[in-house]
Amino acid sequence: MARTGRRPGQTETREAILAAARDLFGRNGYEGATIRAIAAEAGVNPALVHHFFGSKDQVFATALHLPADPGAVVSAILDGPRPQVGERLVRLFLTLWETPASRDAFFGVLRSVSTTEQAADMLRGFIQGALLDKIADALDIPPLRVTGIAAQLVGLAMVRYVVQVDPLARASHEDVVALIAPAVQQYVDRA
Amino acid sequence: MARTGRRPGQTETREAILAAARDLFGRNGYEGATIRAIAAEAGVNPALVHHFFGSKDQVFATALHLPADPGAVVSAILDGPRPQVGERLVRLFLTLWETPASRDAFFGVLRSVSTTEQAADMLRGFIQGALLDKIADALDIPPLRVTGIAAQLVGLAMVRYVVQVDPLARASHEDVVALIAPAVQQYVDRA
Repeated sequence: MARTGRRPGQTETREAILAAARDLFGRNGYEGATIRAIAAEAGVNPALVHHFFGSKDQVFATALHLPADPGAVVSAILDGPRPQVGERLVRLFLTLWETPASRDAFFGVLRSVSTTEQAADMLRGFIQGALLDKIADALDIPPLRVTGIAAQLVGLAMVRYVVQVDPLARASHEDVVALIAPAVQQYVDRA
Repeated sequence: MARTGRRPGQTETREAILAAARDLFGRNGYEGATIRAIAAEAGVNPALVHHFFGSKDQVFATALHLPADPGAVVSAILDGPRPQVGERLVRLFLTLWETPASRDAFFGVLRSVSTTEQAADMLRGFIQGALLDKIADALDIPPLRVTGIAAQLVGLAMVRYVVQVDPLARASHEDVVALIAPAVQQYVDRA
């Protein structure tokens, strides 16, 4: 939604910076994206990026939230019957990954974690701090089993979207749900 | 094993080139490793690399075979009872990923596929051409289900070794087998 004739508000500016960051992290990875470039793409002064986020790390961490927003994941788990947790999670991630902004963010993260220790550290901190225990609590299963689910979903993204191995890359949403949901569900149901 | 005083044979030279390639692809990714650098690290003339492999793509594809040697994977599937296919596959990959050479190769591949289309194309070609149908045939399951297994195993590597999310990163082999093997096995057993 383009707005003209007035200065954008704080929320809009912040969102514009995050959108630019996701775009640049997505295209160039963690090391290839600078505060200066993010500011330029967002059309703001670099000082504003520092004002809102403090550092490039913080911009990255904030942009990271999108492809795996903890609130959305916990809602997907809680909002519905337990025997369909696997199905809801797979549907949630398929939707996220097929939304251009989230998808670009995910690829940016992937590129970053496989090339820089620092990005892997940040992502690990985010997952361990913001996601793992919340989900383990919501499901009442051990955190180790949540990492099994995470592995299945991360691997789905790698094989379907990054390496694009057929027949998984071209399978419909329904076929992917039918394929992957039972694998996720057995982590939930296991005694 | 250092040898002195005689020229290494063809097999040894070829292996030295592949070892150097795995090292450089592992450290620098697909684009960062050149034929010249691989030759230098292997202590051979670049012309020899061309002689053995033709192109950098071919060196890469050949080096790729290691972390997922089709023969080893098919053997792991066939050599033992069907109800333990999942367990054997998880054990095989844990062993591969905890062997420095295979692990470096895997990280090299990961770095490459997440940063260059060409590397993703090569890996896809390799998986679809050399792995998928062999495994689907060996297990007598549809290829789509093999990609579900691949997703679970690739994701295991990402979460355990690349992002190093605890408790999965620090779990023992036995705990990882107990966690992941049932997820793999249900792809095999599913009606």
